[in-house]
Amino acid sequence: MRPMSEVELVELETALRARPGDVNLKDCPSRRVLDLIADKWSVLVLVAVGSGVTRNGALLRTIEGVSQKMLTQTLRSLERNGLVDRAVQQVVPPRVDYTLTPPGASLLPLVRDMCRWARERMVDVELARAQAEGRTSG
Amino acid sequence: MRPMSEVELVELETALRARPGDVNLKDCPSRRVLDLIADKWSVLVLVAVGSGVTRNGALLRTIEGVSQKMLTQTLRSLERNGLVDRAVQQVVPPRVDYTLTPPGASLLPLVRDMCRWARERMVDVELARAQAEGRTSG
Repeated sequence: MRPMSEVELVELETALRARPGDVNLKDCPSRRVLDLIADKWSVLVLVAVGSGVTRNGALLRTIEGVSQKMLTQTLRSLERNGLVDRAVQQVVPPRVDYTLTPPGASLLPLVRDMCRWARERMVDVELARAQAEGRTSG
Repeated sequence: MRPMSEVELVELETALRARPGDVNLKDCPSRRVLDLIADKWSVLVLVAVGSGVTRNGALLRTIEGVSQKMLTQTLRSLERNGLVDRAVQQVVPPRVDYTLTPPGASLLPLVRDMCRWARERMVDVELARAQAEGRTSG
């Protein structure tokens, strides 16, 4: 595939704007966007990058339990979808920094809210599960 | 496993409250909660149930592309973790309705925000991806 021309991009944008998004429709672009952002690793990476953790090694240390493979895949997917920028610094050895793009930055408060909710509600959720497990196997 | 006693539940709650949640720690209960809620199907089911779609068949029709298996799995997981209530109505034939619990209801605005963001930003994201695809394979 060759790069899209300006005309093709404008046509694509016109087609995309022709109907409102609906995440309940399986072929709506918004469903694909939801699939991208409603994902544990995407959320954790966006929050970390948005908090100034900009390098691969630091991300790997910050987000405990993420594998290098999963981190790379998540960063690539966020970059490809325009939520994260990958900047190669011209130093020796070359250094790569990740930052949020403007759309990525606009998502940051939402993913932070998800993490805050997970922290604040973890006791309720764990107690509910402990009781459910007692009931079903008791 | 037998149902937990009151004493055991209080002990579990005390242990859970002993340290603050941190979604970056792989064994923190809040990470498990994030895994539960940062999931496309959980988000779509919570939004639908929170909008008054309370029955299995209606959920299946509303959330296009979800399989019965995935819907059942998502509902069970949300129920087990105390976000959704499953009420069997004593009618003939018996009827099952799903509703949000108070914790589930407190999550509703956040998951609605995620869906709204997906709708509002789908054009930006699609254009970014179209350009990225043109670049990498052009």
